[in-house]
Amino acid sequence: MFNKILIANRGEIAVRIIRACREMGIKTVAVYSEADREALHTQLADESICIGKASSTDSYLNMERIICATIATKADAIHPGFGFLSENSKFALLCETCNIKFIGPSAKIIDKMGNKLEARNTMIKANVPVVPGTKEPVYDVVLGKKIADEMGYPVIVKASSGGGGKGMRIINSAVEFDHNFSNAQRESINSFGDNTMYIEKYIANPRHIEFQIMADNFGNVIHLGERDCSIQRRHQKMIEESPSIAITDELRTQMGEVAIRAAKAVKYQSVGTIEFLLDKNNKFYFMEMNTRIQVEHGVTELVTGTDLIREQISIAANLPLSYKQEDILIRGHAIECRINAENPDKNFMPCPGKITNMHIPGGNGVRIDTAIYTGYEIPPFYDSMILKVMVYDRDRPSAIKKMISVLGEVVIEGVSTNLDFQYKILNNEDFQSGKVDTHFIQEHYDM
Amino acid sequence: MFNKILIANRGEIAVRIIRACREMGIKTVAVYSEADREALHTQLADESICIGKASSTDSYLNMERIICATIATKADAIHPGFGFLSENSKFALLCETCNIKFIGPSAKIIDKMGNKLEARNTMIKANVPVVPGTKEPVYDVVLGKKIADEMGYPVIVKASSGGGGKGMRIINSAVEFDHNFSNAQRESINSFGDNTMYIEKYIANPRHIEFQIMADNFGNVIHLGERDCSIQRRHQKMIEESPSIAITDELRTQMGEVAIRAAKAVKYQSVGTIEFLLDKNNKFYFMEMNTRIQVEHGVTELVTGTDLIREQISIAANLPLSYKQEDILIRGHAIECRINAENPDKNFMPCPGKITNMHIPGGNGVRIDTAIYTGYEIPPFYDSMILKVMVYDRDRPSAIKKMISVLGEVVIEGVSTNLDFQYKILNNEDFQSGKVDTHFIQEHYDM
Repeated sequence: MFNKILIANRGEIAVRIIRACREMGIKTVAVYSEADREALHTQLADESICIGKASSTDSYLNMERIICATIATKADAIHPGFGFLSENSKFALLCETCNIKFIGPSAKIIDKMGNKLEARNTMIKANVPVVPGTKEPVYDVVLGKKIADEMGYPVIVKASSGGGGKGMRIINSAVEFDHNFSNAQRESINSFGDNTMYIEKYIANPRHIEFQIMADNFGNVIHLGERDCSIQRRHQKMIEESPSIAITDELRTQMGEVAIRAAKAVKYQSVGTIEFLLDKNNKFYFMEMNTRIQVEHGVTELVTGTDLIREQISIAANLPLSYKQEDILIRGHAIECRINAENPDKNFMPCPGKITNMHIPGGNGVRIDTAIYTGYEIPPFYDSMILKVMVYDRDRPSAIKKMISVLGEVVIEGVSTNLDFQYKILNNEDFQSGKVDTHFIQEHYDM
Repeated sequence: MFNKILIANRGEIAVRIIRACREMGIKTVAVYSEADREALHTQLADESICIGKASSTDSYLNMERIICATIATKADAIHPGFGFLSENSKFALLCETCNIKFIGPSAKIIDKMGNKLEARNTMIKANVPVVPGTKEPVYDVVLGKKIADEMGYPVIVKASSGGGGKGMRIINSAVEFDHNFSNAQRESINSFGDNTMYIEKYIANPRHIEFQIMADNFGNVIHLGERDCSIQRRHQKMIEESPSIAITDELRTQMGEVAIRAAKAVKYQSVGTIEFLLDKNNKFYFMEMNTRIQVEHGVTELVTGTDLIREQISIAANLPLSYKQEDILIRGHAIECRINAENPDKNFMPCPGKITNMHIPGGNGVRIDTAIYTGYEIPPFYDSMILKVMVYDRDRPSAIKKMISVLGEVVIEGVSTNLDFQYKILNNEDFQSGKVDTHFIQEHYDM
């Protein structure tokens, strides 16, 4: 097992990883930017090392400084968390070169799954259902239009290097094609320096269903059921649940087997997530694979009683999985609400600032993951998510009631948050009856 | 279902009950003493009503005022929590008379189980193993000594009305008998106004094992496994766990069946706990029944995924149990540490005062039940327990590691606490290997 792990991240996920390390008896090194001197992760780790100025490029995205900090503190592994360098294959490769264990899959696998088109083709070969679409890159708008016309509208064009909605357009008819394709391609060039596009049949009003998997270095791959992440605002997840109300036991088994096949197809080694679209007829399509721990991993932990971060670290230390598929029993229902420091009345503009007072509830079936505290100043440089509220209860209606009750107790003063907006969704009748898809927020709240 | 419940308690258990009510859509009324104006339970309930001065007899033990508050607020039921009036049959009877539902068993059952000698005889009749001892009351020291001599030492003399160690003495030899018996009897007269004693064979170094049961008004009784509460200081529990390392699946089934039989013997209706002593040879003996929710109920909730307070309220509302025995699966391991505002260096003297700063951790498998907050002034009038830290993990060693990690993060400034002492126990090798009995603290720490 590792002696010391450097956590190349900040905020609640850094705190989460520090805690997992402590429970495993592993020493921890936090890295922090000048803006994060007073951050909780900086305070909690056994050692903390400042790696640069506030901007991410100077600090949490600065590979060389993170590697230097690792060498200086004699850490033997780096946990990248999510975001920042977590899916950066160059960083994973740099770690490999420096003989530092990157806690995640190899650079090669990150690359393979990061390139959407290559991932898609790999899945087709592995007999994993994908949304009908182009197998070859499309660079040219004329060729693109020809393909889309044959496929039938609506279609979606996507940047091969894309993510988070960037370089992506839904196109409803032939007349809309040209300028939408060109805009998406321009966005991709600007954001990712890549003009490679592909075109898919657009699945109307799908659910976002993702399967958590674990794979070790000995060929063992298991799944831990699904998360329903359909409640999104502009491709940013807001509420996540496990299990999904749309997934029967039979469908879970079927999709779980496909998820395992997908992971095996790339010889995956770590924890990871296979994201699917699920259409109204319960047909599912591979969307992408996330080769890191996810924000919403906690809901899976709540219903399965597992610890995904500890398992991820164990796998990286070359240990076999400590669970077999038959050990994974899904009990009850878990929901997560992401609380962001942002102003819903001002188009969800991030709202950093000082937390002047706060009260975070506890109790039966309540899990809180956060790195904020009274007096903490949220810096304006990073993601606006400040708090993950998770609840566990015996079934979905009970879990929703519990979440409403818990959010009603949360007090965060000094900054605006999306608490009231979350509250609104939880009280929405369609949400409560499970009539949700990825357009839920757009359709109900026109945003 | 009830429309409104008055909570005749304070502190974290009042908060716990308010939360359960909210999740059930039931309105809540808090009662508070003048010392508890700023208490969390006072703030969280839908309505709050001051019932008297700080002293318990003027407030939380004042039956008439609590009944008046219930009538004035039109609440239809009272939840007594634990301590205070929770096992007071007069209060339960007063509720019955006033047509207010007392959330707990009937006055008759409370009485039956509150009288230790009667409870013991009821159990003998129901074929529940009890510690060998007197079936009839003993009032006279000479008769008592004769019985003890025949039984063989060590013996234990107990006040029939006793509890919490009062009116109780362990007697190791004939010469020690007379004055110990007399002292215990005098203590009983002073504390409970009752000179009724009984004598039992003393079980050396037992474990304290208790079974959680649920019983509805339709004859359904189930158990939810055991809690091991052997870590006690002067009969006050400090650490509780579920399951117990000493209980095999076979023994659990056997003891669970006995616990159900015990509850059925008194036609029990509510949640409740059957306490057993378990000796070194895995022989178990009924000790007493607690006819209320217990401080440590949360560890059972963590491993079974249930909600005991909600179930208790449902039963009181005449609903059938929402679980069958086969629904109860024990997964993983849960531990609770009771954190008290007290000074371990000054013989654990209560240490009330103002909390000037605090940080309470969260994360995977962490449950916090508390009613304190930064700026809160702990009043000197009530119990010194201010925080229950509970952890859940896949097995006992992992849960212990997690608890050590969690306690390491807890910050409570302004008052002394037993945090360091809890930390010491958790790091004790005998505790870690499960070599514990009710004398653990006495034997390891001479207290």
